[in-house]
Amino acid sequence: MSKHHVTLVEVGPRDGLQNESRSLPVGLRVELVERLVAAGLSVIEAGSFVSPKWVPQMAGTAEVLAGIAPAPGLRLPVLVPNRQGLQAAMDAGVREIAVFTAASETFAFKNLNCSIGDSLVRFAPVIDEARLAGLRVRGYVSCVLGCPYEGSVAPERVVDVSASLLKLGCDEISLGDTIGAGTPDTTRRLIRELAREVPVERLAGHFHDTWGMAAANVYAAWLEGMRTFDCSVGGLGGCPYAPGATGNVATEDLVHLFDGMGITTGVSLAAVVETAHWISRQLGRQPASRAARAWLARHPLPVEAR
Amino acid sequence: MSKHHVTLVEVGPRDGLQNESRSLPVGLRVELVERLVAAGLSVIEAGSFVSPKWVPQMAGTAEVLAGIAPAPGLRLPVLVPNRQGLQAAMDAGVREIAVFTAASETFAFKNLNCSIGDSLVRFAPVIDEARLAGLRVRGYVSCVLGCPYEGSVAPERVVDVSASLLKLGCDEISLGDTIGAGTPDTTRRLIRELAREVPVERLAGHFHDTWGMAAANVYAAWLEGMRTFDCSVGGLGGCPYAPGATGNVATEDLVHLFDGMGITTGVSLAAVVETAHWISRQLGRQPASRAARAWLARHPLPVEAR
Repeated sequence: MSKHHVTLVEVGPRDGLQNESRSLPVGLRVELVERLVAAGLSVIEAGSFVSPKWVPQMAGTAEVLAGIAPAPGLRLPVLVPNRQGLQAAMDAGVREIAVFTAASETFAFKNLNCSIGDSLVRFAPVIDEARLAGLRVRGYVSCVLGCPYEGSVAPERVVDVSASLLKLGCDEISLGDTIGAGTPDTTRRLIRELAREVPVERLAGHFHDTWGMAAANVYAAWLEGMRTFDCSVGGLGGCPYAPGATGNVATEDLVHLFDGMGITTGVSLAAVVETAHWISRQLGRQPASRAARAWLARHPLPVEAR
Repeated sequence: MSKHHVTLVEVGPRDGLQNESRSLPVGLRVELVERLVAAGLSVIEAGSFVSPKWVPQMAGTAEVLAGIAPAPGLRLPVLVPNRQGLQAAMDAGVREIAVFTAASETFAFKNLNCSIGDSLVRFAPVIDEARLAGLRVRGYVSCVLGCPYEGSVAPERVVDVSASLLKLGCDEISLGDTIGAGTPDTTRRLIRELAREVPVERLAGHFHDTWGMAAANVYAAWLEGMRTFDCSVGGLGGCPYAPGATGNVATEDLVHLFDGMGITTGVSLAAVVETAHWISRQLGRQPASRAARAWLARHPLPVEAR
């Protein structure tokens, strides 16, 4: 992976929208993905096959996927919670899935209703089956730099669960700073610990801007060799653990960061800010991100788009 | 300077409040400074002796200074535009002043109505007289990482004007990223250029969060040896060059950053967030900073304080 390129994994249509109180219809979700593709994003988490009883915002993910125009090189991973989810995803033609666990036992119990170890046992056959079918598999690990219930989380816990997920067959581990508790220092220490056991090319950073540290942490992770980062257009999603606070780092903030470092992302800042503005308007508000607000202050949109 | 300590220069009562549309009375400005002192800040820019015709928000700075209870080690610099300003500051018992110029000619003309060179000529006798009187002198350089009129600014311009200010007798140079255009990479490059000519201990970073990069840039500057950073409680001040966008980096964001890195600032995060909340309420809004919002989401204030 070039030192001068990073991959941005857009998670707004899944991780973002599933944490918004307002559910968006399939048509708008298709349009969101297509606007993101047009902006230059090539990896877009398009939805999840979790029961709509639990996550109504993601109902109709198969229809969303069916509505997206194919594009060369476009990857559209989806989240699956179990074998039924995997089957539904494969029926929808999905080529890439994500499974999820945590580095904190309490968080795992609250979110998965089982221990970390049991979650790995539960996901093992899902990963197996996906890989047999030739799917790419991503493993999400939550709470890598802090837990809303336990507070600090030992790096060794993150190393253990990440190594286990890779051993089970995951291609990539997305390290989630679920509550945005990380700082550049703790971020670098964690990646150094991980790098002893796991190739850094297999790691992605999933930072939250809850405490305003996301860009700093992404930069710190980049200094440690990380080249893949999750982000959410317009900062979609908020923070479920601190209502009113910021959640996912905004895609436009990271595009601005890397543009300014001369590192290519393939993403157009103007187009992603316009998408942030558009989707925020669908949700009845302004984009939360600094970069979108700064850009919009300097590039007023036509009146009909405000 | 210890690797494990940084000095935060609180600029909210001057740089922050002078860019707020609502003027606050002397009593509230005294209370703001005293709350900041109680939070642990020991360098607080308390006002300016610019004509109230131009900056009505800073009218009554002498009364503000007279109202602040003395505290051991407390430094209360003020901004002065010329010799009359210096005289008024000395009459008010000030021990530390700041003068200001820019690294961009167009910005200098728009803000000082003269060239950078002429601004240095204008400030030379002010600095001389201040130093003769035993005052500490800080020099602000605006637009070090970009100009709202000229776009990019060559590092050599910043080196030239910083070196000139030090030669004129300034003790410290505060490098202002006035429009928040810097990224970690451009920040580090600038400091490296400067460090060839100027001791890094004499430099302070004054970052704006307009594009969400302030914490990342502070971290980058810290990696280059910078140990003094300006900040504004609650992110007071906004961005005069992009209305609606963010301005000064919030004090609480930097306290959180350095707390998380095990670096002491002497400042209590809780107390500074409460101050951010209190002063924002005086201005009729919520604190703009991520850290304040995250902290307040987890530590609800008593109803009467909301």
